[in-house]
Amino acid sequence: MITEKIILNEERNVTLTTYLQPVGEEFAHIKARPAIIVIPGGGYDFCSDREAEPIALAYLREGYQAFVLRYSVQQNKIWPTPLNDYDEAMALIRSRAEEWHIIPDKIAVIGFSAGGHLAASAATMSVNRPNAAILIYAVLDEASAKEWNETAPDTVSAVDEKTCPCFVAASRTDTMVPAANAIAFCDALYRNDISFESHIYSYAPHGFSLADNTVRQSGWKITERAKDWVRDSIGWLKEVFGDFGDSGMTEPMYGHYALLEHGDTLSVDASIGQIVSTEGGKAFFETMMAQAAGAAGAGVTGGGGDIDLKQSVLERFKMRDLLGFAGMSAETIAEIDAQLRNIPRK
Amino acid sequence: MITEKIILNEERNVTLTTYLQPVGEEFAHIKARPAIIVIPGGGYDFCSDREAEPIALAYLREGYQAFVLRYSVQQNKIWPTPLNDYDEAMALIRSRAEEWHIIPDKIAVIGFSAGGHLAASAATMSVNRPNAAILIYAVLDEASAKEWNETAPDTVSAVDEKTCPCFVAASRTDTMVPAANAIAFCDALYRNDISFESHIYSYAPHGFSLADNTVRQSGWKITERAKDWVRDSIGWLKEVFGDFGDSGMTEPMYGHYALLEHGDTLSVDASIGQIVSTEGGKAFFETMMAQAAGAAGAGVTGGGGDIDLKQSVLERFKMRDLLGFAGMSAETIAEIDAQLRNIPRK
Amino acid sequence: MITEKIILNEERNVTLTTYLQPVGEEFAHIKARPAIIVIPGGGYDFCSDREAEPIALAYLREGYQAFVLRYSVQQNKIWPTPLNDYDEAMALIRSRAEEWHIIPDKIAVIGFSAGGHLAASAATMSVNRPNAAILIYAVLDEASAKEWNETAPDTVSAVDEKTCPCFVAASRTDTMVPAANAIAFCDALYRNDISFESHIYSYAPHGFSLADNTVRQSGWKITERAKDWVRDSIGWLKEVFGDFGDSGMTEPMYGHYALLEHGDTLSVDASIGQIVSTEGGKAFFETMMAQAAGAAGAGVTGGGGDIDLKQSVLERFKMRDLLGFAGMSAETIAEIDAQLRNIPRK
Amino acid sequence: MITEKIILNEERNVTLTTYLQPVGEEFAHIKARPAIIVIPGGGYDFCSDREAEPIALAYLREGYQAFVLRYSVQQNKIWPTPLNDYDEAMALIRSRAEEWHIIPDKIAVIGFSAGGHLAASAATMSVNRPNAAILIYAVLDEASAKEWNETAPDTVSAVDEKTCPCFVAASRTDTMVPAANAIAFCDALYRNDISFESHIYSYAPHGFSLADNTVRQSGWKITERAKDWVRDSIGWLKEVFGDFGDSGMTEPMYGHYALLEHGDTLSVDASIGQIVSTEGGKAFFETMMAQAAGAAGAGVTGGGGDIDLKQSVLERFKMRDLLGFAGMSAETIAEIDAQLRNIPRK
Repeated sequence: MITEKIILNEERNVTLTTYLQPVGEEFAHIKARPAIIVIPGGGYDFCSDREAEPIALAYLREGYQAFVLRYSVQQNKIWPTPLNDYDEAMALIRSRAEEWHIIPDKIAVIGFSAGGHLAASAATMSVNRPNAAILIYAVLDEASAKEWNETAPDTVSAVDEKTCPCFVAASRTDTMVPAANAIAFCDALYRNDISFESHIYSYAPHGFSLADNTVRQSGWKITERAKDWVRDSIGWLKEVFGDFGDSGMTEPMYGHYALLEHGDTLSVDASIGQIVSTEGGKAFFETMMAQAAGAAGAGVTGGGGDIDLKQSVLERFKMRDLLGFAGMSAETIAEIDAQLRNIPRK
Repeated sequence: MITEKIILNEERNVTLTTYLQPVGEEFAHIKARPAIIVIPGGGYDFCSDREAEPIALAYLREGYQAFVLRYSVQQNKIWPTPLNDYDEAMALIRSRAEEWHIIPDKIAVIGFSAGGHLAASAATMSVNRPNAAILIYAVLDEASAKEWNETAPDTVSAVDEKTCPCFVAASRTDTMVPAANAIAFCDALYRNDISFESHIYSYAPHGFSLADNTVRQSGWKITERAKDWVRDSIGWLKEVFGDFGDSGMTEPMYGHYALLEHGDTLSVDASIGQIVSTEGGKAFFETMMAQAAGAAGAGVTGGGGDIDLKQSVLERFKMRDLLGFAGMSAETIAEIDAQLRNIPRK
Repeated sequence: MITEKIILNEERNVTLTTYLQPVGEEFAHIKARPAIIVIPGGGYDFCSDREAEPIALAYLREGYQAFVLRYSVQQNKIWPTPLNDYDEAMALIRSRAEEWHIIPDKIAVIGFSAGGHLAASAATMSVNRPNAAILIYAVLDEASAKEWNETAPDTVSAVDEKTCPCFVAASRTDTMVPAANAIAFCDALYRNDISFESHIYSYAPHGFSLADNTVRQSGWKITERAKDWVRDSIGWLKEVFGDFGDSGMTEPMYGHYALLEHGDTLSVDASIGQIVSTEGGKAFFETMMAQAAGAAGAGVTGGGGDIDLKQSVLERFKMRDLLGFAGMSAETIAEIDAQLRNIPRK
Repeated sequence: MITEKIILNEERNVTLTTYLQPVGEEFAHIKARPAIIVIPGGGYDFCSDREAEPIALAYLREGYQAFVLRYSVQQNKIWPTPLNDYDEAMALIRSRAEEWHIIPDKIAVIGFSAGGHLAASAATMSVNRPNAAILIYAVLDEASAKEWNETAPDTVSAVDEKTCPCFVAASRTDTMVPAANAIAFCDALYRNDISFESHIYSYAPHGFSLADNTVRQSGWKITERAKDWVRDSIGWLKEVFGDFGDSGMTEPMYGHYALLEHGDTLSVDASIGQIVSTEGGKAFFETMMAQAAGAAGAGVTGGGGDIDLKQSVLERFKMRDLLGFAGMSAETIAEIDAQLRNIPRK
């Protein structure tokens, strides 16, 4: 492994530490690796070691290239200096992607507390947007941002349709950075149709990092589940980026957007509303619905078949879900998807 | 195991199915068991078998007494009839708690979809409130409630300080009952200081039940993590109710309220704001803070020591967290808690 | 769920308790279910409740039909009476398989301690052999068998090529039924080429059952991993029996035998020794080896390519493993398998 | 992290790569760390990268200091050269323990395949014995050893009472290094009363390493459980070495020996046989047995109370287990332990 501390700005003590694994040879099926940039917390006052290398190791062990970004704090925290630090780091990584065996469009950021604010800013306001963002007990809303850095912007209102998929974890009992931050950010992601996953754990203090004994002490009262964000964020990244396949990465499980088809054609991921709003789709749907209703007639949970669905439900209902309820197999649904992809969406 | 279907209302076909395990003898350490009432979904149109017995089995296996409530649907769904069904069931169970070896103040409800609406109504509006509520892809807000039962009330605005601790799980891509329901309900729980845990999974259709092959088919596109709500809700119940101990249940990990001390005296679970607002607490805190700042000076994540905390943060900061950051042991914190419990809160 | 206690022999107090789940309707993809017979321990002196219903519940929750067999103990334990009880129970279950929605050739036994001796006897000596056996801290060898029932036979020497696949779990520190029992039984399974999985946990007392708080007390010193046999035995059963598929069970992952191809034709599961011992196979192999060596030349772990394999290794080496080492994809290996299946083994 | 490749022997290309994490400061509760030496496989022909750094990362992430030993292979594999390489490496690490923040008596070795043979040799024949050994699909017995290195010794017959606790994992279907190796080694550990844990997985090819997609390809047919050895070996190390506590490591869960008390006094870990063989113990036991029998009378699984235990069982029965069966609490058992520790064993 090649570990190197690259100085991005000597004055402001901004550094990017690299943790790079080999590819090829005995890892013949791996030509290049996804990567993650770790952004530690510390209230824009320092960069916490407990949210730096131990985090990098967790993703390295999963085959990722990892980086730790130590950004501008204290008197240098005036916005947008920290965001510029991030943008410079991401630009550098993408420019050296080939040399470092990195897949340039599979680079995530993970940020904690104030570092989570910087990671969320990267996801919503940066020039060089990341491809996924993991936000752990992150400072996100206006009120919290100001408490740690008066010049720091609200990230909630900054969520836009270019915002990358996000994984948001927090503690219900965090009294430094309230769970309200996570709730508001998820609400913004929801309203912008961005894919996300969210876990708010019942009990943990702020700053639990990996929540295991390498970082905690007996004085910490914390739920067993708080440490699950590590395993779950890795599982989530494998869905968003794909996993290591026979040669290169496998297909991602889903895309940037959660509920609506944003492509040029219809698909099983389009809603019935989207489908019937096109001429070709409308004709297609009438056939489908008969089948689905028939099969779901058996009475699949949540209804589908039997229930006379309100128009509002029917319109946003995904074709894929309708077919799943109708008990159709993955193969059949794939066939239907292929047909829908021949119908232009607009 | 004693399984019996008790008819609560013949006309409306309301039934309570019991699944009761023995106590004593070889289970000598178990005098009585916590219990759970399973409330299946079905759009207030039917009660889904896929969200009934399989769910009861999951909690039975953990030592719980289980019940399945089949409530009023279709023409009988007019509110508050379904809620009355619940109230009658809970009253019956508590009245027979001794005979059925149940701990009357450790009875949870779990509801799915429309059944989740009924479970949330039980948690917020019923006469016989449950002691914990597990809400899975539940119908919760005004808009969704009306889509499935025009007479059904909004549960989000009904959340009050008597609402029990809640476990909320949903899918980001649910197109029948949008994740917005879970987000809004958690926000209401947050604003009312109610303990909760929340998991919104990245991808799953509505109605995934246990999300395993006993209920799903290949046509369902679903994240591996969607099934984790079962394991996690069990872990959460063990925190809220305690677990089976040497004789009776162990102490719960935390209480009804999440952030503020609601007891008559101070404790390490009180915020600094609450502590310094009392004379005795103010004096106590000044000593403490010196110690905490000193220890945390090493630079514990998220700050504490070094950082000059904004007054707003300091005021809501829990004493327990401050001590944990200061690297104090569980024993020391317990001693400090004992001292604080001698100081009246008001 | 239908639970019924069927009396097999009133005098000897032999009973079979049924736990039967429905099929069809909302479980449309399930036409029939695999089943498991739970055989509790108790030193052939009694049948322990702690190894009866709680175990049945663990498999019920996974979609299995479950049965608890209470067999002849105390003065009735004279061999082969207990084995006859098992044979009668299995015969009854298979005879009522259709009525009870059971797949007659996917019926496992699970036995604990002395019940594990009976389960192992069922697997090795019965008339109506089970299709899989799960043996938990089981009495298996001559010495232990005699300690609990002087008329009970050694099961280790009884292992034969008709013995079903077995899952064997034990504790290193069991002082009632030493881990030597598990070690010797696995050795016998190995020598008979029977598929098995084995877990010997570092520390646990005898009789830990599910090893969770529903059956244990604080006085029990036990490793966290001891409870994993439950989850792992379920995962293993899904490999041996297949899992619930779109309509009926999926294909098992592997067969009755572990190392050698016992079928009429060659396959990728045949050893190189088996392959080259046939004329067609010999020709086929010469082509293959060149390819494998070429690809593995990259230097796959454990060698393959680079290493000049001893003849003894090469002869028992599975074609499947050789191809895997050569970095071939699942698709390619499937094609090669199809070709080998055209070559008669003898 | 400090990574450095130390050359132990230039000619034979023997190197020790270090992966060292910091202690103190934000990791104030960690004064020094346990360590692990990774010994890759490769048939004594090469050292596999797939069993080197990825393995080191898995333990680094758990807070361990890690080392990769590349030892003498090919023409340099003549015994005892590889073992001397290990001895030199361990001597170097212990000599620099303070500088490298390592706990000198908490250093494990982990070896794979031929590297597992070297690790097992270290555990049984070296001058500088490790404190724990993890053996993954290891070459252990005479027959296998000779297949990979004609000068390599049998490790099974070398197991002695100085052998450290071992974690042994293998695949039932390994055709390069048969599971017979693991079975025989566990049998030897058992006969020498050494603590161990063992997992033989149902299906996996040789050389599966971490068994995840960072090292495997689709052509590999492998059980989901094969990857569990990583998590389980970490859990096991926390029992053998203790875990990170408030200041230094917590107490190990158990010791070097599994069944018998080897200390100077009696304890609850002594067998009844050991206890009654001493005068003080005999008197003590008579009181105890009455209590235990009484409580266990309820009929605890596996017997204890009711059952009239054979003398042979009673003699090897651990006092701790007897008390646990009698339903005694951890506190009571601790008191009894304290009393027994006042009675000399010989």
